Amino acid sequence: MNKRSYLIFMYTIDELRNCIKAELDRQAYVEEPHSLFEPIKYIMADGGKRLRPVLALMAYNLYRDDIEKVLKSAIGIEIFHNYTLLHDDVMDNAELRRGRPTVQKKWNSNVAILSGDAAAITAYKYIETVEDPYLRQVINYFNKMAMDICKGQQYDMEFETRDDVTEAEYIHMIFLKTAVLIGGSIRHGALIAGAPQHEHDALYDFGCHLGLMFQLQDDYLDVYGDTAEFGKKIGGDILCNKKTYLLIKALELASAEDKALLRDWMERVNFDPNEKIRAVTDIYNRSGVREAVQAEIDYYVGKSREALDRIDVPEERKERFREIIDAMGARKK
Amino acid sequence: MNKRSYLIFMYTIDELRNCIKAELDRQAYVEEPHSLFEPIKYIMADGGKRLRPVLALMAYNLYRDDIEKVLKSAIGIEIFHNYTLLHDDVMDNAELRRGRPTVQKKWNSNVAILSGDAAAITAYKYIETVEDPYLRQVINYFNKMAMDICKGQQYDMEFETRDDVTEAEYIHMIFLKTAVLIGGSIRHGALIAGAPQHEHDALYDFGCHLGLMFQLQDDYLDVYGDTAEFGKKIGGDILCNKKTYLLIKALELASAEDKALLRDWMERVNFDPNEKIRAVTDIYNRSGVREAVQAEIDYYVGKSREALDRIDVPEERKERFREIIDAMGARKK
Repeated sequence: MNKRSYLIFMYTIDELRNCIKAELDRQAYVEEPHSLFEPIKYIMADGGKRLRPVLALMAYNLYRDDIEKVLKSAIGIEIFHNYTLLHDDVMDNAELRRGRPTVQKKWNSNVAILSGDAAAITAYKYIETVEDPYLRQVINYFNKMAMDICKGQQYDMEFETRDDVTEAEYIHMIFLKTAVLIGGSIRHGALIAGAPQHEHDALYDFGCHLGLMFQLQDDYLDVYGDTAEFGKKIGGDILCNKKTYLLIKALELASAEDKALLRDWMERVNFDPNEKIRAVTDIYNRSGVREAVQAEIDYYVGKSREALDRIDVPEERKERFREIIDAMGARKK
Repeated sequence: MNKRSYLIFMYTIDELRNCIKAELDRQAYVEEPHSLFEPIKYIMADGGKRLRPVLALMAYNLYRDDIEKVLKSAIGIEIFHNYTLLHDDVMDNAELRRGRPTVQKKWNSNVAILSGDAAAITAYKYIETVEDPYLRQVINYFNKMAMDICKGQQYDMEFETRDDVTEAEYIHMIFLKTAVLIGGSIRHGALIAGAPQHEHDALYDFGCHLGLMFQLQDDYLDVYGDTAEFGKKIGGDILCNKKTYLLIKALELASAEDKALLRDWMERVNFDPNEKIRAVTDIYNRSGVREAVQAEIDYYVGKSREALDRIDVPEERKERFREIIDAMGARKK
């Protein structure tokens, strides 16, 4: 019998999400001045799936079931995520976020900058609640992760004005901007549950692979998704020439003729949106881009499975993580 | 004989400043992407007096002389200070900082936002270097201080569009925006030197009083300073109707006639700058504003002396702190 196969209570994902929601509701942001905290409350109220804190709780629940001990710091991660959204929306001059006006549109960019700063510090306040034996390592990983996310945003902005971004550069950028926060959330839960170093390292890798998969599928679904299921309009990335994995691969794989055609579409100022989406999708189809992105996603499906294999907890506890991988894998079809 | 009167080496302020400078020079900001760190290097290169880390070292040196142990985290405080300047300059749309173009003018506001974020995280990375028995308390005080500074900036921005700011509100705002970082720097040095709670509390109070004095004198010198000595043009605050302690007191103390005259000057769009400065200064003089601000500064001189008295180290070690108070007191004449 495995040394860690003692019985612990396994929460369902819905139960964990409800714990997160209840804890978030308890945080009322009532400090003065209200004008500083109101925008944080506004962006935090706009739920979403609470993916990052739920993953932190799931990772904790691999080892322990007293999940109230990870709740506060898991919420710190969610607040930190929302801080990055507040500042990204200023830098991107974005008008909408999950269907609602961004803070910088509803108020103004100064409000989004300063409330973002206050959100980041609030996140640190939640993170500092972890217990003593873990505090130094938690802070150390958190700071490293936070800096990685900054670097990812910097690369993302720089890529906008470059037309020679390589596949490797793109993967590195989404690793920094998106994947390390998923990996970091999962590592965090395992770390403060007392998991040994090599296991929370493996869970970090697992989460990063999951994050890469997630972003690659976002890129994929923008072109090949079903509007009703995907929840946003198809072709948005194509219309604004966003440097997705698909566009970068097309510029690498397409025939000389199709490359010229693609660059021509990218430079046009006046065009019929549906015509552009159809034309670019046709180029993607002809160039094997659809297969390339599917292969890349499958690669990270495999890598994430391998990472899970390195974790020495009973197989039934890992089952939910495997289900997430499968759901992700299925999402692309 | 006092239990702490064993001999420790007392560094001069210049020696401490040189230690800070040498350590700052060792930090090269060479990480990739350079575009993210270049603006941090730029603002950090623009030295100034390094007041905050020097005060942290001085406070440490009250108790211990192995000052290399406080260097890194003291520099974290200086980097944090510069992060607040980066974001404040975006929010104020400022063009110059210490005579050089601000980051948001030299590059753009997105660069200043994201490099500011990276500077804040860099600061946290330096802060986390403190030794184990102090880490939790250091992080706790640092987070609280960081949030206070955000709140201070929020109040400062709100005051710009209000014309009923009270003296108490103004003091509270400069306490949050300016004083807590001075107080926090001094507390930090004492805390990680192993000072008992009531002593680093007293040093925090001392530093906060010093910070309030410092800001009140800035307000005072803008009107009554000598251009050559003060290093910036006299009357700048008057010209832009900045809500300084002097303006707030004038709106409280002046005669009904002078109040009307003052509001009239504040509303004029076309005016001769020298005439406005002269007229407003005359109102200040007639209303007893000069005496009021001097009395307020003297109040904090007294409070800071009292705070120093609460610290149980040999008098000769505190001497340099008393000299700073005296120098501040003299600065106003």
